[in-house]
Amino acid sequence: MKAPLWIATLSLAVAMTDAPAERPDPIFSDDDLAIAAQLRDSALQGNGGFDVVEELTTLIGPRLAGSPADAKAVEWAVAYLNEAGFDRVFTEPVTFPTWHRNTEKATITAPVERELVTLALGFSPATPQGGIEAEVVMLDDYEALQAVSAERVEGKIIFIRNRMERARDGSGYGPAVRARSLGARIAAEKGAVAYVIRSIGTSTNRFAHTGTQRFDVGVRSLPAVAISNPDADQLERVMALGEPVSMHVEVDAEFVEAYTSQNVIAEITGSQSPEQVVAIAAHLDSWDVGTGALDDGAGIGIVTEAGRLIQALDQKPNRSIQIIFFAAEEIGLWGGRAWAEKNKDNFHNIQVGAESDFGAGPIYEITAKVSDEAKPVIRAIADVLAPLGIELGGWDAWGGPDFRPAAAYGMAAVDLRQDGRNYFDYHHTENDTLDKIDPANMKQNAAAYAALAWLAAQSPVRFGSGPDLIQPEG
Amino acid sequence: MKAPLWIATLSLAVAMTDAPAERPDPIFSDDDLAIAAQLRDSALQGNGGFDVVEELTTLIGPRLAGSPADAKAVEWAVAYLNEAGFDRVFTEPVTFPTWHRNTEKATITAPVERELVTLALGFSPATPQGGIEAEVVMLDDYEALQAVSAERVEGKIIFIRNRMERARDGSGYGPAVRARSLGARIAAEKGAVAYVIRSIGTSTNRFAHTGTQRFDVGVRSLPAVAISNPDADQLERVMALGEPVSMHVEVDAEFVEAYTSQNVIAEITGSQSPEQVVAIAAHLDSWDVGTGALDDGAGIGIVTEAGRLIQALDQKPNRSIQIIFFAAEEIGLWGGRAWAEKNKDNFHNIQVGAESDFGAGPIYEITAKVSDEAKPVIRAIADVLAPLGIELGGWDAWGGPDFRPAAAYGMAAVDLRQDGRNYFDYHHTENDTLDKIDPANMKQNAAAYAALAWLAAQSPVRFGSGPDLIQPEG
Repeated sequence: MKAPLWIATLSLAVAMTDAPAERPDPIFSDDDLAIAAQLRDSALQGNGGFDVVEELTTLIGPRLAGSPADAKAVEWAVAYLNEAGFDRVFTEPVTFPTWHRNTEKATITAPVERELVTLALGFSPATPQGGIEAEVVMLDDYEALQAVSAERVEGKIIFIRNRMERARDGSGYGPAVRARSLGARIAAEKGAVAYVIRSIGTSTNRFAHTGTQRFDVGVRSLPAVAISNPDADQLERVMALGEPVSMHVEVDAEFVEAYTSQNVIAEITGSQSPEQVVAIAAHLDSWDVGTGALDDGAGIGIVTEAGRLIQALDQKPNRSIQIIFFAAEEIGLWGGRAWAEKNKDNFHNIQVGAESDFGAGPIYEITAKVSDEAKPVIRAIADVLAPLGIELGGWDAWGGPDFRPAAAYGMAAVDLRQDGRNYFDYHHTENDTLDKIDPANMKQNAAAYAALAWLAAQSPVRFGSGPDLIQPEG
Repeated sequence: MKAPLWIATLSLAVAMTDAPAERPDPIFSDDDLAIAAQLRDSALQGNGGFDVVEELTTLIGPRLAGSPADAKAVEWAVAYLNEAGFDRVFTEPVTFPTWHRNTEKATITAPVERELVTLALGFSPATPQGGIEAEVVMLDDYEALQAVSAERVEGKIIFIRNRMERARDGSGYGPAVRARSLGARIAAEKGAVAYVIRSIGTSTNRFAHTGTQRFDVGVRSLPAVAISNPDADQLERVMALGEPVSMHVEVDAEFVEAYTSQNVIAEITGSQSPEQVVAIAAHLDSWDVGTGALDDGAGIGIVTEAGRLIQALDQKPNRSIQIIFFAAEEIGLWGGRAWAEKNKDNFHNIQVGAESDFGAGPIYEITAKVSDEAKPVIRAIADVLAPLGIELGGWDAWGGPDFRPAAAYGMAAVDLRQDGRNYFDYHHTENDTLDKIDPANMKQNAAAYAALAWLAAQSPVRFGSGPDLIQPEG
């Protein structure tokens, strides 16, 4: 149901006048605050879970959802979490369509010849054997693609030169990535024969950036590839020569039948309200290039470290804390969708969800989406995080990619926002490898997740998951 | 003939007491100094030859010596230099053996499986079809390879984990690169079956670094590849698991028959002593990966810009100035060797040689190898370069790679030393593309080469090329 506008406006007014409200005191017991501080500070003395991502990337490496490495990663995760001594480790099945890259090639064929560094986009269909060769039409961005006439692009290869902007909060990604997610099907509707984009990334290194496209059975799309940013520059220079430019694009890729992987969940069982769950998460799958160190091995390490620090305490949390390794995030949030569906009648028991899936930059801000009643609790948590250089932000959290499906059920969410200025230099490229992680940042991240999870589990109030937190559409 | 030690010691003593010697004054006429300053300052107003490297890399791209692109590059260069209006443009043949990369692959096969980013090294023989699989023996460096017993490596794949150090003057390259240049033949002598090195480069990006190996007909070598530095890290982590590690290496490459390319030379003919030549140079060939923008498109741009600024003057230099684009530098200094051989009886007429072949970093120092009589001239030139942030260094110049063969004939040399801290992040990798060049630095470089070339052509004294400048061996 869509809420009337006045309700949204009223909520906004409440939110705006809410800031100076006095804080009920004390929110947490001295013991709980002391444990939170101890978790935070011992995380800074630890390794932030770097050993976890090191082991995952060394032993398993890239682990595309539905690949043999996906199964190995699940097996590894279950063994690792059991070995770490969590109260309970279990899996939940996640079924999804899969896609497999064989080879891809993109070449400028006229007026100069040049092979470009390229990667097929997820769910790209294959070209006919021998590839497709056609004249190139260059367009500025997704909006230009929407606006272009079919006559101009029919029978052509479309190239979108759309550049992603660098930003701390990663806000350059959203506007740029539409060209990747949705472009090829629009190009198909207009009669183009292949679809080429500048990589949705900020690096000037010669790596192409893959990533998924929206996939719906029966919707026609086109062979679609991203070329590295220096190669996109080269293509633009060749376009600027003023002669007709042609390219050859060849993709060999396969859709394979539905595959079932697993969300892997480790639990520290609550002592008082075990049915209530604080969920801290990351995703276990990765793209098939690179080793998924930043995306999302770092997150796996961070939440595992937070969890094992809590598990090692003499005291159990009041609520249960679950560390969730989601399956098949990269190719369509399948793990998050399955989890939301499984919990659809249980969200009143999900205290909060928070996913670490933005690399290994330091956290600079905590934001939340919680009931008004819980906002003072968030403020008190922010006070504990402040020595980590983390400030209280707004009330616009979404919990991270795998918790997006849960938003439809009004799940309370916390975002521990990481500095992502460099994240898109590596994200979804062959260059996402262990050496790109600064272990010092992982410690700060683990400290924040450990303190957050503990305090969320001890909160005197529920965070308000349920219909009241469902945001109006639009 | 090898000079006795006391002569070398005496020369050193002379050099050491030489610094405070008084400078004859004036060395250059006011007009010549004014023109040098004008060249320097107008270069800073120009584009540093960025248009040249842009055109070369856009239209030709990678241009491995002996490839079809080599011929295209020579054709382009002759046309470009003629168009630029030089007094004379000519070519000199250079014949060399060539090597052609088809494919390469390096994979860890046990105890984990992982495909590594790799490039075959120049002149690597092919493996048998299907490749070679064997256990890996890891060694620290070239010295360890020399020391290792044949029993330890017989039938094995040798991996050298040797790391190159970053330094402004590139001094980390020499010690590290021996593992590339000479390692595979030593490994062959000891009965190893393939040879793998950590890339001789400073980048943590996932690019392998190719480069030539010493090649002598009849000397047996081994299939040899470099793996990217993150992949070398991965291999080291796998070795650290403590189990036997095996790899599979497959190289398909061909030696092809002797090929004849051309050194391309543009001349501004001297008005008084046209037979005497100031040679500023770069090399036209590149590796077959990347587009040879930094190595050595930048040098091509810099010396072309310096030359065309001088060509555009109303006045001719006293001596001739030649802009030399050397052929086949990367695979063995073949252009430089042919040039030295051609000039072997003419070095008394080569005033000086200076090659730009270290990327596009700013120049921080001028060094020279000249007769004592010419040292005050170098000091006067250094005064003109000082506003560019260039300091006078020592007397140990070598002129750059393509002038190394000329050193055997005692050619006077000047080095305009560039800051190379970032050079080996890109050098010989797929990532050596136009966007890595800062045009502002090219302007500073062109300014220095223009002023140097002009003043060397106007120098009241010869720089002393000839037997007296042949340095004792060792």
